[in-house]
Amino acid sequence: MAKLPGEFDLIARYFKPLARRMPGAVGLEDDVCTWSPQADQEIVLTADALVAGIHFLPDDPADFVARKMLRVNLSDLAAKGATPIGYLMTSAFSPEIDETWVKLFCEGLAADQDEFGLSLMGGDTVATPGPLTLSLTAIGTVPKGRAPRRNGARPGDKVLVSGSIGDGALGLKVLRHEFLGLEEAHRRHLANRYHLPQPRVDLGRALMQSGRVTAMMDVSDGLAADLTHIAEASQVSATLRASAVPVSEAAAAILADDMSWLPLVLTGGDDYELLLTAAPDDVPALLGLAAELDLPLTEIGEIEKGSGVTIVDRDGTPLELGAKGYRHF
Amino acid sequence: MAKLPGEFDLIARYFKPLARRMPGAVGLEDDVCTWSPQADQEIVLTADALVAGIHFLPDDPADFVARKMLRVNLSDLAAKGATPIGYLMTSAFSPEIDETWVKLFCEGLAADQDEFGLSLMGGDTVATPGPLTLSLTAIGTVPKGRAPRRNGARPGDKVLVSGSIGDGALGLKVLRHEFLGLEEAHRRHLANRYHLPQPRVDLGRALMQSGRVTAMMDVSDGLAADLTHIAEASQVSATLRASAVPVSEAAAAILADDMSWLPLVLTGGDDYELLLTAAPDDVPALLGLAAELDLPLTEIGEIEKGSGVTIVDRDGTPLELGAKGYRHF
Repeated sequence: MAKLPGEFDLIARYFKPLARRMPGAVGLEDDVCTWSPQADQEIVLTADALVAGIHFLPDDPADFVARKMLRVNLSDLAAKGATPIGYLMTSAFSPEIDETWVKLFCEGLAADQDEFGLSLMGGDTVATPGPLTLSLTAIGTVPKGRAPRRNGARPGDKVLVSGSIGDGALGLKVLRHEFLGLEEAHRRHLANRYHLPQPRVDLGRALMQSGRVTAMMDVSDGLAADLTHIAEASQVSATLRASAVPVSEAAAAILADDMSWLPLVLTGGDDYELLLTAAPDDVPALLGLAAELDLPLTEIGEIEKGSGVTIVDRDGTPLELGAKGYRHF
Repeated sequence: MAKLPGEFDLIARYFKPLARRMPGAVGLEDDVCTWSPQADQEIVLTADALVAGIHFLPDDPADFVARKMLRVNLSDLAAKGATPIGYLMTSAFSPEIDETWVKLFCEGLAADQDEFGLSLMGGDTVATPGPLTLSLTAIGTVPKGRAPRRNGARPGDKVLVSGSIGDGALGLKVLRHEFLGLEEAHRRHLANRYHLPQPRVDLGRALMQSGRVTAMMDVSDGLAADLTHIAEASQVSATLRASAVPVSEAAAAILADDMSWLPLVLTGGDDYELLLTAAPDDVPALLGLAAELDLPLTEIGEIEKGSGVTIVDRDGTPLELGAKGYRHF
């Protein structure tokens, strides 16, 4: 780590300020952080690893890398209605990482700590001859026993999704210099949605508090795959109406030009929206909650007995995932 | 990851069984784990990253890698008197990692989960073109406000250390084919101490419960460096009597042959013993606690006003760390 100050200097200069609102982190001068939830709360824990060149582009700006890493984990907390508290982060810095990179990286963390109200709690900083590798454990709290799980979907439930689907996967293509004919504002929107997902923390908490959600998770593997996860965990089947899936204006412009991008929208992932199920009678109340937060929440399908997920076209024709993507029967 | 099953298969086959005693992990079928401490407890969190070729040898057996990773973190918990509860782990698997390796790795985790009474709570499994990189966040509990910190050492306190110091660093040299003239039993002892440190969980808890410890941490960076950490955090100075530092029979045999290995013993690290301070009147009670657990606890120095750490020889002569290691004035 020739380009970097020593580990202790790096921590004192850049990471310690990120822990100043967490008294139990003792300025990162101990090996541990102590903290306790309120008596009526349980903690919610989630961890993710990101490798440069696989989970983000090696030339992505450091502050975007930091914020995306935090937000990917905050999205997991949001799907359980949890309030973010803090995170532990381990960084394996590759040889090309210099102090400027770390400074910008920590500025990104600071910005999102302020935006989402959480704090660094601890971690570890090491060197690697391989690609930059980051690992983050995020901690939140939720009223005991109230976190919606994946396995509660029941036959008759409706399937809903927040925001819009497909922007993350299309945004990655924009960053890889595809869709060059697309309007510049649309290109910027898609790239931004890839770089900076919006974890639905407030919506997740409101949905959890309503007690009307039977299953919830965030869309990270792709809408089709994640609905399959809910169906499998709940031992039910699901129908997904492709035409009902909400897309941004930018994604709509791409699909209007070439509908063959639809499979990517439905399976591309990196959406970080909330996917949930609820009884039909509860849907209007949930839509009302989302409207109060000015966030779209859209009914996109139904839960039935059985197993598997069927994706249907506007006219009810099933679409099937073939070896090279979705195709009509 | 051509040699590995898919991520979901890998999780179902090898990682899910490690989470079966943690109901809030829901068989790793959700993105999060929920859990709450008892009302009188706070949680203690610590994280470490390990990179193959830097923190362990690339050809170290997978079960030893797993157990060492767990134990390094358990040692941090032990130094706060915490009872281990669980851990989240992210694994970035390099191309040469195959299913046999993962199976053995998880057998190592299972063995130490049983030995130390903790459970896998969650994590993430990704591929990397770089070296195998592991990150672990460990969670324990301690009665609220009772965790000994680094910053409580007071002038007049005695410095104590558990077990024996130097085996880890000497063990690494044995594994690198040094000390070939050493008795085979000694070589095995040292190699084993490097591979499989013994986190002092029971001793740490007993010391915390006694309320007689003013500062405590585990020895991972080296005895001299870690005593410096306590002195700096506590704004005091410390004297370390080199001749009082407890060493194993194997280390004693090496030092009897060549005292120039003493600096490595005092600075090599990877000891995972407990380093603590206490008022002189409290020392006998602490020694009694350790004796009940059949663990050596040895007085090795004193805390004074001022700053810095002085290492003294048997006759009180200061030893100084030169550019090439310790040297006499």
